[in-house]
Amino acid sequence: MSETFDDLWAGLAPLGRDRAGGGYRRFSWTPADRDVRAWFTDAASGLGLDVRTDRNGNLWAWWGEPGPGAIVTGSHLDSVPDGGAFDGPLGVAGGLAAVAGLRRRGVVPDRPIAVTVFVEEEGARFGVPCLGSRLLTGAITAHRAAGLTDADGVTWSAAMQEAGLDPSGIGPDPDLVAHIGAFVELHIEQGRGLADSGSPVGVAGSVWPHGRWRMDFSGRADHAGTTRLADRNDPMLPFAATVLAARSAAEENGAVATVGKVRVWPNGSNAIPSRVRAWLDARAPDEAALRAVTDAVDAAARTAASEHGVFHATYQESYSPVVEFRTGLRDRIAALAGHDGAPAPVLPTGAGHDAGVLSAVVPTAMLFVRNPTGISHAPQEHAEVADRHHGVAALTDVLADLACDANA
Amino acid sequence: MSETFDDLWAGLAPLGRDRAGGGYRRFSWTPADRDVRAWFTDAASGLGLDVRTDRNGNLWAWWGEPGPGAIVTGSHLDSVPDGGAFDGPLGVAGGLAAVAGLRRRGVVPDRPIAVTVFVEEEGARFGVPCLGSRLLTGAITAHRAAGLTDADGVTWSAAMQEAGLDPSGIGPDPDLVAHIGAFVELHIEQGRGLADSGSPVGVAGSVWPHGRWRMDFSGRADHAGTTRLADRNDPMLPFAATVLAARSAAEENGAVATVGKVRVWPNGSNAIPSRVRAWLDARAPDEAALRAVTDAVDAAARTAASEHGVFHATYQESYSPVVEFRTGLRDRIAALAGHDGAPAPVLPTGAGHDAGVLSAVVPTAMLFVRNPTGISHAPQEHAEVADRHHGVAALTDVLADLACDANA
Repeated sequence: MSETFDDLWAGLAPLGRDRAGGGYRRFSWTPADRDVRAWFTDAASGLGLDVRTDRNGNLWAWWGEPGPGAIVTGSHLDSVPDGGAFDGPLGVAGGLAAVAGLRRRGVVPDRPIAVTVFVEEEGARFGVPCLGSRLLTGAITAHRAAGLTDADGVTWSAAMQEAGLDPSGIGPDPDLVAHIGAFVELHIEQGRGLADSGSPVGVAGSVWPHGRWRMDFSGRADHAGTTRLADRNDPMLPFAATVLAARSAAEENGAVATVGKVRVWPNGSNAIPSRVRAWLDARAPDEAALRAVTDAVDAAARTAASEHGVFHATYQESYSPVVEFRTGLRDRIAALAGHDGAPAPVLPTGAGHDAGVLSAVVPTAMLFVRNPTGISHAPQEHAEVADRHHGVAALTDVLADLACDANA
Repeated sequence: MSETFDDLWAGLAPLGRDRAGGGYRRFSWTPADRDVRAWFTDAASGLGLDVRTDRNGNLWAWWGEPGPGAIVTGSHLDSVPDGGAFDGPLGVAGGLAAVAGLRRRGVVPDRPIAVTVFVEEEGARFGVPCLGSRLLTGAITAHRAAGLTDADGVTWSAAMQEAGLDPSGIGPDPDLVAHIGAFVELHIEQGRGLADSGSPVGVAGSVWPHGRWRMDFSGRADHAGTTRLADRNDPMLPFAATVLAARSAAEENGAVATVGKVRVWPNGSNAIPSRVRAWLDARAPDEAALRAVTDAVDAAARTAASEHGVFHATYQESYSPVVEFRTGLRDRIAALAGHDGAPAPVLPTGAGHDAGVLSAVVPTAMLFVRNPTGISHAPQEHAEVADRHHGVAALTDVLADLACDANA
């Protein structure tokens, strides 16, 4: 099973990697995405699985005829810009390796097993994270998803069509969802919760509520040398004040807030900008704290914008309420994924996942693999080889347990 | 002469204009630049001028054999991103129209006249403004200019070669400079100095000292949801603090300071940035005040960067000392360019110009045309038709005066 995983990993690792920086650029419906999807189809077919594409472009590799009570695992293959190798791919390659492991053990499951690849989990190209699982479960309307655009104005529909898929049928798929008996996602940990512990694998307790807001500051372009300060409507100034306000609001509320993406028009060094657009990512232990952060950021933006005669508007691009994974399934999995006689530790997480979206409609759990630096969404993201194997072994045990009646 | 100007203007106006926003994107050595250079060559040849390209890619349209004492006028055709129609082109089309006007008047100049187009005046593609005039006069070395790169890493040399010119001979051209008896640049005013006055045309008194500094803030990319605030090295935070500090420093020193251009890596909404690069444009009435501004900005950047464990470095990309145009030439031109019996008003300016660079080596003057809103470096930049004609008429009178011995 660990050889299978290592082989799969070696095939996937070079795809969509930037040679200079070492980071991944696997954005939905791009050539890199086509390559990783082809890798998945080949690898799953090679294991004798039946690969199908659902109406939203998510991939499903079935062991056994699709039907009710299926045990589903998987994750995503898309990345943030210059992301790491593990966030997503570990769960996909791990899911395939776990199936191979079950086969090798001679396990005959009593219900179907599937390994999935959800599209646009990061929202890096079209702005809404977990788009594939949101569409599947109806958490976003087909109409809104179809019209989402990338930085060049290309719509989700057009990009999907360009990639050779039919976008006309996107939307909720209740029949497919009804097949899912349980969903278990294996994922790299994106913090240091396990780093200093003796446990290579943990299980998810809850996912912090989180969201993404686009903030537009619209002023007036003008000459940087000749326009008096008093005559300016410079949107860079309220934007900067808002960045600092977001940090303070997060500190005050035990939350995190990040402005990681900015666009400036016209973006000339000797022109006062006409517009600054920035994205706020905010997450908190509970929804009241998250609301306190976004309210404070919005108030600061409004005040600073008005001071500079700049128009300000905020748009919520996505919002995910708190997810508390089911304690029964969680504890069963923690026992199976334990190490040295102790159950796997339960960890809260600030990261959103397809598992979080699916948890609204089916029993769902997550396994985390230790990350020695805690760094994620960057090329330094890492899991030791032994820990990857621990993660795959734990997932294999969990699938065996959930898919076989003897263990029910 | 006004018909000639209007005809020239109509031919130039559509080139390099963005259809959606109406702004201009005429960047050096791009297809739009090739188009405006071809327009100039055709227009000048049509007036019987002999068009030559100097070793740095600047264009010279000669009336009469090139030689000492030449009276030179002109400006530039490149633009800032989404710039206005007048900044640069008014002086080029105006120069050609003035030559046509002299011809129509039957003026026979006693010395050669040339209309020039200087390359990369805005520095919008390669970062150093007035690059063509700096190269011509030796204010920048050929070595440094050759290696300047655009946002895609293309060098000045490569771009020039791609445009069909030989970059191997770039550098100072003392023989050509020695030909220039005087240089007079016609330009749109980039402020409201003339807007509420009865004067359609003014003359330049001085150009504020000014410069451009690139500021790099390098932190560490990480996951926006899972990295604790205390564990972050987020370069967006010291960048934001620096933007606000620049504004305060400018206010305190009677200066202007602008952060109009920003790049963020990896620029993902759920990734803490690894790096933020921003450009500071600062200008002040005198060099001590400018130094006070840049020192204050640098200190603020250093403090904020260190607070967040971010590496900060500032690079001076260009610096232009104060320019005081010669008072003799200025007053002679102000008298010629007057209106309703009053001499043209003398205006200081915060904008850099090729005339400012040339003033270090030859007698130089500038004529400004009234701009009703004062807006520049934006599509709203404007001069009324009657005022354009006033500007061209004034330039025609100035060229006649300077090029004919009877007036010397």
